[in-house]
Amino acid sequence: MTDPISAFPVPALDTLPEDIRARILVVQEKSGFIPNVFLALAWRPEEFRAFIAYHDALMNRREGLTAAEREMIVLAVSIANQCQYCVVAHGAILRVRAKDPAISELLAANWRKAPISARQKTMLEYATKVSTASHLVSASDRQAVLDAGFTQDELWDIGAVAAFFDMSNRLANAMDLKPNPEFQAIGR
Amino acid sequence: MTDPISAFPVPALDTLPEDIRARILVVQEKSGFIPNVFLALAWRPEEFRAFIAYHDALMNRREGLTAAEREMIVLAVSIANQCQYCVVAHGAILRVRAKDPAISELLAANWRKAPISARQKTMLEYATKVSTASHLVSASDRQAVLDAGFTQDELWDIGAVAAFFDMSNRLANAMDLKPNPEFQAIGR
Amino acid sequence: MTDPISAFPVPALDTLPEDIRARILVVQEKSGFIPNVFLALAWRPEEFRAFIAYHDALMNRREGLTAAEREMIVLAVSIANQCQYCVVAHGAILRVRAKDPAISELLAANWRKAPISARQKTMLEYATKVSTASHLVSASDRQAVLDAGFTQDELWDIGAVAAFFDMSNRLANAMDLKPNPEFQAIGR
Amino acid sequence: MTDPISAFPVPALDTLPEDIRARILVVQEKSGFIPNVFLALAWRPEEFRAFIAYHDALMNRREGLTAAEREMIVLAVSIANQCQYCVVAHGAILRVRAKDPAISELLAANWRKAPISARQKTMLEYATKVSTASHLVSASDRQAVLDAGFTQDELWDIGAVAAFFDMSNRLANAMDLKPNPEFQAIGR
Amino acid sequence: MTDPISAFPVPALDTLPEDIRARILVVQEKSGFIPNVFLALAWRPEEFRAFIAYHDALMNRREGLTAAEREMIVLAVSIANQCQYCVVAHGAILRVRAKDPAISELLAANWRKAPISARQKTMLEYATKVSTASHLVSASDRQAVLDAGFTQDELWDIGAVAAFFDMSNRLANAMDLKPNPEFQAIGR
Amino acid sequence: MTDPISAFPVPALDTLPEDIRARILVVQEKSGFIPNVFLALAWRPEEFRAFIAYHDALMNRREGLTAAEREMIVLAVSIANQCQYCVVAHGAILRVRAKDPAISELLAANWRKAPISARQKTMLEYATKVSTASHLVSASDRQAVLDAGFTQDELWDIGAVAAFFDMSNRLANAMDLKPNPEFQAIGR
Repeated sequence: MTDPISAFPVPALDTLPEDIRARILVVQEKSGFIPNVFLALAWRPEEFRAFIAYHDALMNRREGLTAAEREMIVLAVSIANQCQYCVVAHGAILRVRAKDPAISELLAANWRKAPISARQKTMLEYATKVSTASHLVSASDRQAVLDAGFTQDELWDIGAVAAFFDMSNRLANAMDLKPNPEFQAIGR
Repeated sequence: MTDPISAFPVPALDTLPEDIRARILVVQEKSGFIPNVFLALAWRPEEFRAFIAYHDALMNRREGLTAAEREMIVLAVSIANQCQYCVVAHGAILRVRAKDPAISELLAANWRKAPISARQKTMLEYATKVSTASHLVSASDRQAVLDAGFTQDELWDIGAVAAFFDMSNRLANAMDLKPNPEFQAIGR
Repeated sequence: MTDPISAFPVPALDTLPEDIRARILVVQEKSGFIPNVFLALAWRPEEFRAFIAYHDALMNRREGLTAAEREMIVLAVSIANQCQYCVVAHGAILRVRAKDPAISELLAANWRKAPISARQKTMLEYATKVSTASHLVSASDRQAVLDAGFTQDELWDIGAVAAFFDMSNRLANAMDLKPNPEFQAIGR
Repeated sequence: MTDPISAFPVPALDTLPEDIRARILVVQEKSGFIPNVFLALAWRPEEFRAFIAYHDALMNRREGLTAAEREMIVLAVSIANQCQYCVVAHGAILRVRAKDPAISELLAANWRKAPISARQKTMLEYATKVSTASHLVSASDRQAVLDAGFTQDELWDIGAVAAFFDMSNRLANAMDLKPNPEFQAIGR
Repeated sequence: MTDPISAFPVPALDTLPEDIRARILVVQEKSGFIPNVFLALAWRPEEFRAFIAYHDALMNRREGLTAAEREMIVLAVSIANQCQYCVVAHGAILRVRAKDPAISELLAANWRKAPISARQKTMLEYATKVSTASHLVSASDRQAVLDAGFTQDELWDIGAVAAFFDMSNRLANAMDLKPNPEFQAIGR
Repeated sequence: MTDPISAFPVPALDTLPEDIRARILVVQEKSGFIPNVFLALAWRPEEFRAFIAYHDALMNRREGLTAAEREMIVLAVSIANQCQYCVVAHGAILRVRAKDPAISELLAANWRKAPISARQKTMLEYATKVSTASHLVSASDRQAVLDAGFTQDELWDIGAVAAFFDMSNRLANAMDLKPNPEFQAIGR
């Protein structure tokens, strides 16, 4: 017998509303397994739909920040919040997106010393401030990001991705969400 | 000339997609004004839709936690994050929901000394832990909430409302969202 | 039956030394009620006299900082210390002094985004440093205040008002001092 | 030439109001020198009078807490606030009051390991909470002090002495008050 | 051209004192590469010898704590200190010692949720307190470790390993020590 | 009967390995007493030898930083870590090395206001950052030290002494090491 994946009830796939089941099957098809967050969130169908829609709006955008850059933000925020699920899951995605098996561990250990560009460090500096001291974010913080070459749209995305995962990390920590073992080998 | 309500572009109402405009007009109808968060978020239509759907799923539920209790959580989280917009806007809503013109200021100043029940203080203790140290949330924290008489569904809601506003607060702080002056007089 | 206003004994007005009673009656005459801090402190007559004398020396001065500016400092310090009594009482006074029903809530939520001048933000930046990290206050911090156009006397007052309410906030929190309901409506 | 004792103007003794000068001469008579805090505060005569009256009401009381115990609180608070003047001056006084040349350094380094009674450690635990997290002080914190054998009057004094020196420490730090070299040898 | 492995001079292997070179060759023989910490520390031969002797005394002991348990402590301390080198290098060693390719990432992300025993969590709780708040370590903290079944020798080792890596982490961070890419694949 | 000097077993001098006993006798000869750290660490002979070798490599160097400067770093780090033993013992040594009976208390209370040179304050600023936030140490922090006139060797030493005492402080706190009363009078 194994540990439950969440401290809250986890529905069986075939009991889920059709749209949610369909969405999960697409992921399973693509990944080869169902990441636990999908089933764990699905016990609240309305929240599931909003969460996924929000996630996709921020993470699937293909203008501006690259897919790898979005994952860097997720990982920097998630390790600071000590969200085990997100560190493991998005560490795997970042390895794939960046085509670099070492990047996630280096970035999680200390993003200031990770093998990323100075521009990307400015991005993570801002994301970290939004995540840990948003009440102090000022016009000059936003300007520093623009000065590093980011557009206004990218500036928004950096803050929004950070804020979204500040929520996700807390949800995952509050439900004690377990990462799937399958993530471990991805992108190594 | 007045300060802009956001550091990012704010669309005119009549340029918005029909569904978003319709949603905003309903709020305007009910409140007598358009809360700034609606226009400020609407520059990103997809995120707007997901944000509102998520918000409504958590805040419009009418089983379990009362509407006032949900607003207590929002206010306790928002004052800790120093989100001016959310403190002002949800302070107004809490005054209305609790039918108490003094409650919001007392709760924002120090919820531990607010005129609320011991059960509600347990609720805010848990919400505060999810908001400020979610990596330390354990089975015994969840049990303490259940022991205070909350159901498992309510336990989820407490954490989820806290987490959602940890995101909202950061978004509002990152965009420097200004609260509407109209909130000030509501529920006094 | 209502909650006691303090965790310590509260003397009846007519049992107090004549000078203290006289002082309290003046306040009652002017305000229409006796703010709880007066009765709660009066169980220690000597400390009451020193506290009031100190308070008046700092808060009733009419050169330099305006009455509203002094209250801004009090509010910024008191919300950071989560002193419910001082946030409520001095929030009311600031609304009156600034002739602005919205100012106190905006300033308490996040003074960095309050509708005050850049000069006043420099004032609150220094007050906040004195309140939260006085061991790091240096000549350059003092110079920044002078450079914003404050005199040396005003510089002293900013620090002294902050320090005095760092004491008051702790006294009020340690005695669990309850704010009078009458404050709520003042200056709205 | 030596460093000034304060970043603010320091009046010459013979320019001071008669009552303040008299008070200072008494101290000089007793100590053999004028502790810098007296001259530095005297540039603000009204505040000087209130400060001294408050200080004496709390520190010269001879019921309840002993003189040494009051100084222990001062030292524990002052080292946490990194107030150099108060650590040096009150370290000297504590050595005298406790008739122990080693106590002040041991207590300043870590009061939890100082050679004092368990009851006195409960006293300093409460003083530390009032000083560093007064918004969390609750009825059970007060009860713990009473349970250790302190009276209600002593409980008040512990909190009030801590709060008063939280003010004094900030004043001294904001004015960059220099300790007199004479303190060094006292009580060794 | 690649980044230097340290912000300080790094000696060539053949310029090193014989004993140090011999020690390094043994590691190279065993690991297939020279971990950067060896060359980076070797510019200070005396410190190198003391560091290695200390490390071996703590990490090569084979009574009491297992090799994997020692590495768990190292990893928990190192991720909190954000020491990239130690997280990467000791993450690799822990994977080998625990014969578990997933353990290091799970433990680094949040050791409280790692797949280790309750006894091992008590071990890491104590190590974390020694690392982050050693001034608060008390007899009851030590007793909690003994109560979990550890011997007095093991209790010492837990604290000593934590303390040693609090030093190592700071040294590595201060010299900007780069982890070898070879660590990445070890134990996966 | 007196308090034990450590929470762990303390060996009798004549039971110790010859080299350790010899080393301790030299100290006793020079100081007139045996500092408790020697006996307390000696229950672990291997760790004792490595600790002393490391200590001597860093603290007995006579190029670069003066002996007094090395002790300033130790004291600044040790008071922040609230290590009673190190504050007392190294406070005594600093008084001797600096030939100044007042320096240690002034520096421990707030090194930013101690009577040391601006160059030495830069040294302690860097040591404090290594001690409290080494993950943020960057090339510009190192450059600031070099710009103050320190050599690269001295830069290393500042960080290494800080790091070594971050370890020592934690060891002493974890074993509840008591300072010898003899330190009190040294160098006054």
